[in-house]
Amino acid sequence: MGPNSFGNSISITTFGESHGKALGVVIDGLNPGLRLDLTVVNRMMNRRRPGGNSLGTQRQEGDKIEILSGLYQGIITGTPLTIIVNNNNQKSGDYQKIEELYRPGHADYTYQQKYGIRDPRGGGRSSGRETLSRTAAGAVAMQYLNKKGITIEAGTVRIGKTAIDPTSTSYNWSKRIHNALYCPDEEATASMIETIEQCRRDGDSVGGIIECHIKNLPIGVGEPAFDKLEALLAHAMMSLGATKGFEIGEGFHAATMFGSSNNDQMRTDGFMSNHAGGILGGISNGEEVVFRVAFKPTPSISQKQKTVDQNGINNDLSIEGRHDPCIVPRAVVVVEAMAAIVTLDLLQIREARRPI
Amino acid sequence: MGPNSFGNSISITTFGESHGKALGVVIDGLNPGLRLDLTVVNRMMNRRRPGGNSLGTQRQEGDKIEILSGLYQGIITGTPLTIIVNNNNQKSGDYQKIEELYRPGHADYTYQQKYGIRDPRGGGRSSGRETLSRTAAGAVAMQYLNKKGITIEAGTVRIGKTAIDPTSTSYNWSKRIHNALYCPDEEATASMIETIEQCRRDGDSVGGIIECHIKNLPIGVGEPAFDKLEALLAHAMMSLGATKGFEIGEGFHAATMFGSSNNDQMRTDGFMSNHAGGILGGISNGEEVVFRVAFKPTPSISQKQKTVDQNGINNDLSIEGRHDPCIVPRAVVVVEAMAAIVTLDLLQIREARRPI
Amino acid sequence: MGPNSFGNSISITTFGESHGKALGVVIDGLNPGLRLDLTVVNRMMNRRRPGGNSLGTQRQEGDKIEILSGLYQGIITGTPLTIIVNNNNQKSGDYQKIEELYRPGHADYTYQQKYGIRDPRGGGRSSGRETLSRTAAGAVAMQYLNKKGITIEAGTVRIGKTAIDPTSTSYNWSKRIHNALYCPDEEATASMIETIEQCRRDGDSVGGIIECHIKNLPIGVGEPAFDKLEALLAHAMMSLGATKGFEIGEGFHAATMFGSSNNDQMRTDGFMSNHAGGILGGISNGEEVVFRVAFKPTPSISQKQKTVDQNGINNDLSIEGRHDPCIVPRAVVVVEAMAAIVTLDLLQIREARRPI
Amino acid sequence: MGPNSFGNSISITTFGESHGKALGVVIDGLNPGLRLDLTVVNRMMNRRRPGGNSLGTQRQEGDKIEILSGLYQGIITGTPLTIIVNNNNQKSGDYQKIEELYRPGHADYTYQQKYGIRDPRGGGRSSGRETLSRTAAGAVAMQYLNKKGITIEAGTVRIGKTAIDPTSTSYNWSKRIHNALYCPDEEATASMIETIEQCRRDGDSVGGIIECHIKNLPIGVGEPAFDKLEALLAHAMMSLGATKGFEIGEGFHAATMFGSSNNDQMRTDGFMSNHAGGILGGISNGEEVVFRVAFKPTPSISQKQKTVDQNGINNDLSIEGRHDPCIVPRAVVVVEAMAAIVTLDLLQIREARRPI
Repeated sequence: MGPNSFGNSISITTFGESHGKALGVVIDGLNPGLRLDLTVVNRMMNRRRPGGNSLGTQRQEGDKIEILSGLYQGIITGTPLTIIVNNNNQKSGDYQKIEELYRPGHADYTYQQKYGIRDPRGGGRSSGRETLSRTAAGAVAMQYLNKKGITIEAGTVRIGKTAIDPTSTSYNWSKRIHNALYCPDEEATASMIETIEQCRRDGDSVGGIIECHIKNLPIGVGEPAFDKLEALLAHAMMSLGATKGFEIGEGFHAATMFGSSNNDQMRTDGFMSNHAGGILGGISNGEEVVFRVAFKPTPSISQKQKTVDQNGINNDLSIEGRHDPCIVPRAVVVVEAMAAIVTLDLLQIREARRPI
Repeated sequence: MGPNSFGNSISITTFGESHGKALGVVIDGLNPGLRLDLTVVNRMMNRRRPGGNSLGTQRQEGDKIEILSGLYQGIITGTPLTIIVNNNNQKSGDYQKIEELYRPGHADYTYQQKYGIRDPRGGGRSSGRETLSRTAAGAVAMQYLNKKGITIEAGTVRIGKTAIDPTSTSYNWSKRIHNALYCPDEEATASMIETIEQCRRDGDSVGGIIECHIKNLPIGVGEPAFDKLEALLAHAMMSLGATKGFEIGEGFHAATMFGSSNNDQMRTDGFMSNHAGGILGGISNGEEVVFRVAFKPTPSISQKQKTVDQNGINNDLSIEGRHDPCIVPRAVVVVEAMAAIVTLDLLQIREARRPI
Repeated sequence: MGPNSFGNSISITTFGESHGKALGVVIDGLNPGLRLDLTVVNRMMNRRRPGGNSLGTQRQEGDKIEILSGLYQGIITGTPLTIIVNNNNQKSGDYQKIEELYRPGHADYTYQQKYGIRDPRGGGRSSGRETLSRTAAGAVAMQYLNKKGITIEAGTVRIGKTAIDPTSTSYNWSKRIHNALYCPDEEATASMIETIEQCRRDGDSVGGIIECHIKNLPIGVGEPAFDKLEALLAHAMMSLGATKGFEIGEGFHAATMFGSSNNDQMRTDGFMSNHAGGILGGISNGEEVVFRVAFKPTPSISQKQKTVDQNGINNDLSIEGRHDPCIVPRAVVVVEAMAAIVTLDLLQIREARRPI
Repeated sequence: MGPNSFGNSISITTFGESHGKALGVVIDGLNPGLRLDLTVVNRMMNRRRPGGNSLGTQRQEGDKIEILSGLYQGIITGTPLTIIVNNNNQKSGDYQKIEELYRPGHADYTYQQKYGIRDPRGGGRSSGRETLSRTAAGAVAMQYLNKKGITIEAGTVRIGKTAIDPTSTSYNWSKRIHNALYCPDEEATASMIETIEQCRRDGDSVGGIIECHIKNLPIGVGEPAFDKLEALLAHAMMSLGATKGFEIGEGFHAATMFGSSNNDQMRTDGFMSNHAGGILGGISNGEEVVFRVAFKPTPSISQKQKTVDQNGINNDLSIEGRHDPCIVPRAVVVVEAMAAIVTLDLLQIREARRPI
């Protein structure tokens, strides 16, 4: 399987460059018979889209989806479902300079070294626009999950130095969907927004953390040894462009804990805690699956940076144009999308390998 | 591909239960012609083995490897290399009780729910003994890497509340190999050992963090979009039994940073920093690859815990027997092994997809 | 990997229904740096196209390719190369009747039973139009092979009762490219054409055999045990819609032979014969790879046939519209295309697993 | 996935050399809960074993299976099931000469060229003994199928010039299991045996054809486009060492037919014929699946043959030792085994991708 495909029973294959003709995804292995709700797809696509609120980039990407195959009279047929988004309004002129200069923090240098050639317009294949394909696929997967009562909800829990406080009275997970940053803590939000706005003024950018909850997942999802639920989630999340870390349940904090406090003891009515994050031995245990993903600051900043050009000459670079000072709020839906794909894939596999 | 296989061009398939007849691994896709150095394999196997030092479990697992196929006159032939370890001295009697009781923090409950049947002896397939197969495979992969000058070195950087301090004068990465905990900071080591010994006295356990460095990796290793180097490393590490988190470069700390400080600026003689951890856009950039893995406290503790049995009755459980209060030092070599497999796999794939 | 993907190091993912919006293919894993010659692609697409000569269907499918991704300034970049063909002039009205009736010899019935839903227009996903995607991908693969001096040439060697005679003076393999049926035997061609024309008059159809030669393939291509060259070729060919048989070298005739005559003896200047068809133990031996593929008669015939409808009522069916009485000549290029994909895939893998 | 693995939801990984320490197989993805009947496994292993009757080689391979993992108290647990056969009585001395000489028709030359090294003892990895691993895996898969009422039955339908006649009164498919050649036609058997005995006297060998029936297979098994049932069967069969051809239903004969006679017309009580061999569009149609596999004559013959040695010097070779003049009767069970693996794999996948 090629490196642009992901999944086993369900698999997605993404393609497309930031300023190429189109980006898209082929989703293979879907259960036939589902009526696809395009409003759900578009809603998720819009959440990923820049310009969704005042804090994102000012670019207006149309991102209008077109379905090429796999749908008949609105029903998913089980043949490959292909969704594309044509690139219409990309101004490649903005990127002329960076054809020659390697942007720090971007993949320009490594692509050039690896492939010997690259489409430099807008970052080409390594652009964050690739997540558009994943979001579309995730929006399809999500509808299967929702039909089974499974929901996947992510939110912003840190921007720079500001983290949410789940014990605060201002914390309300369900309200995060109406929050400009998808942050479940309204009080923290103000500080986060201030950080982002300061970055915009400074020509800088900032990172953050997204937390994701998979709810109502039945027991038994995940395939040891190598396709453990957390392993596939980690693979999915760390394959996103700007991610630097993944943790499940207590995550890195578990490293500081004792077994006596980290173990989730059991009673007949369930687990007494959920330090594990809903997974034991790679298999869902019926509790909520909780994981977090760390995002680095957007590498595109307008501050002057030292770099080299393709001819190996030292140079300085100030990246102009409209760039997100913080990618995190837009990435929330992408995290949900990738989690949905992993979950649906493992749910299908569970059906294949049921006890007789 | 089954869930007990991992890798693309190189692939490993592990098998075996803790107290079954044997555990082992089939390694497929190896480049023919390498003379396999069994002392390297045995050295890595010994590092994983319990009882390697006073801090581990007192069990003496023989773990003597046997090679069933793929080697002719000491040379790897390119056909599947199969390595097994027969289970000789496993006392299954120790585990009689846990056939009936689900051990908190273990996979007993989820395996039973998922499969309807499980080998309960020593944790069966979900036992940490499965990493024996991975270590053997990694020890083979390592020899290919070393021949190319690539080395992979891991060490313990946190046990419970005690973290190393890389700026301390007691910090020396290269000395960690002689350290009882594979810790590069001798001063921190004392405190770590005290924590572990206290756990042993308390019938408790403690977690920790392992850091791993891949050195001399050439540029261009890693396959976007989904087989990014960090994505495969994360997959590999999170497929280990007790891991709860993975991060690369600045990792979760990057979430608190600004782009202006996180971006690695460049000069003609290389990058000016390595916040990225040696990867840009999923592709190695020539810098050292640096990642960390969080391990939870060993779930087997002798303190009394609340649990239920297979019949759904509430019960208490004190796990007797000789168990590691801290798995981290033994896991260091396993992290190296899995990193070696990922690295060799991606190096092979780089050869397949070279620019023409 | 999904069932609509094929290949390991190179992989293709095809999508699209006969009368859907578009058909296409994503090709992943290509070596970067090749300048794609679109005239080669179009030439192969045209050879597959109906209406290429008087013997095919009268439909004029435009089959104009559009490249969505993976190409920059005419050069293949190594990211997924996506090629689509929009469906413009499909008259779905022709197919209204067959929504209700299962066409004998077609996949209508099995798709309906398996998926519970299908796109019935023009056969939907099971239409021969799917080979358009494969042909486009094969035309890309072919250019890599040609650059290495490897050529792949197929021809029609049987139509119905008429087989070519390789010992005849009218036999000339290289002339088959100018032959209306891609037949290397001009004398046999006349009889084949008569058979096809008679079928058209009779509202019937006829089958045939295609032979394919892979020339200048280096030694060492093919991966035992399961990815033997002939096994992957068989998989590729038998995944085509109308194929019923595959054989390599002497093929089924080998079953009638003795070892003393079937074995290819060797001298220092090479093999003394090529009964094996260029493969020993699944690995190319430096001789020409020769295989044959059997095609059944096109199932769409205008003669009245007995069938049932979706409601389980007996009915009769005469398929109207313009249908090929013989698909074989158009399938020649499809066989070449699939052979090119298999060959390029295995050549890449050979690079990955070279002896050290 | 490595080239020594096969299958998607169920996958097998085979390993081992003819005269190495052991051969074996890891079967991954099995449904847990089946009580494994070892007598079924041993019966199939014995059918593959040489010396099963007077017509085979005189070698007595013990082929005693040992189960290393995946079974607990006789029940398959769903973790990897590993079966090995230790090589005890292999006389490597017999093969000394062939370390230097490439045996015509064998893979000695291609392995040496591809890998630069090979285990020459008994053909090493390319030995027919590899099918021992497949047979063991198939015997496991078969038990799942039988539980669902599905049976797989193969028989010898041609040896050299002698083919069975299904219209003869001596033809009885069900009696073939008691026939020395697994031939369903007693009259043809006599002539086949005479052919084989004559080969033995002549120091020669002969090929043949095996036909296989998959009975009671439900509708809907097989995954278009590339994982069509016949495509995976072809892949499986053509990955066997001595196979030269595969055909389904009418097979190569379909190439000579007209659509009007080849199409299987339908009535409400089923198909009126089964020219298709139980498959339409890659999906089982509820009819019996019928396919045939062509085997070449065993390449090991004692007649003097021209060859070259590893140093590139012309030489003659007479292969001594006890070799089968005809491999076909022993291959019957191997064909059944591989068919069972393909069928079980696709049945599992059908469960995963059911209509919602």
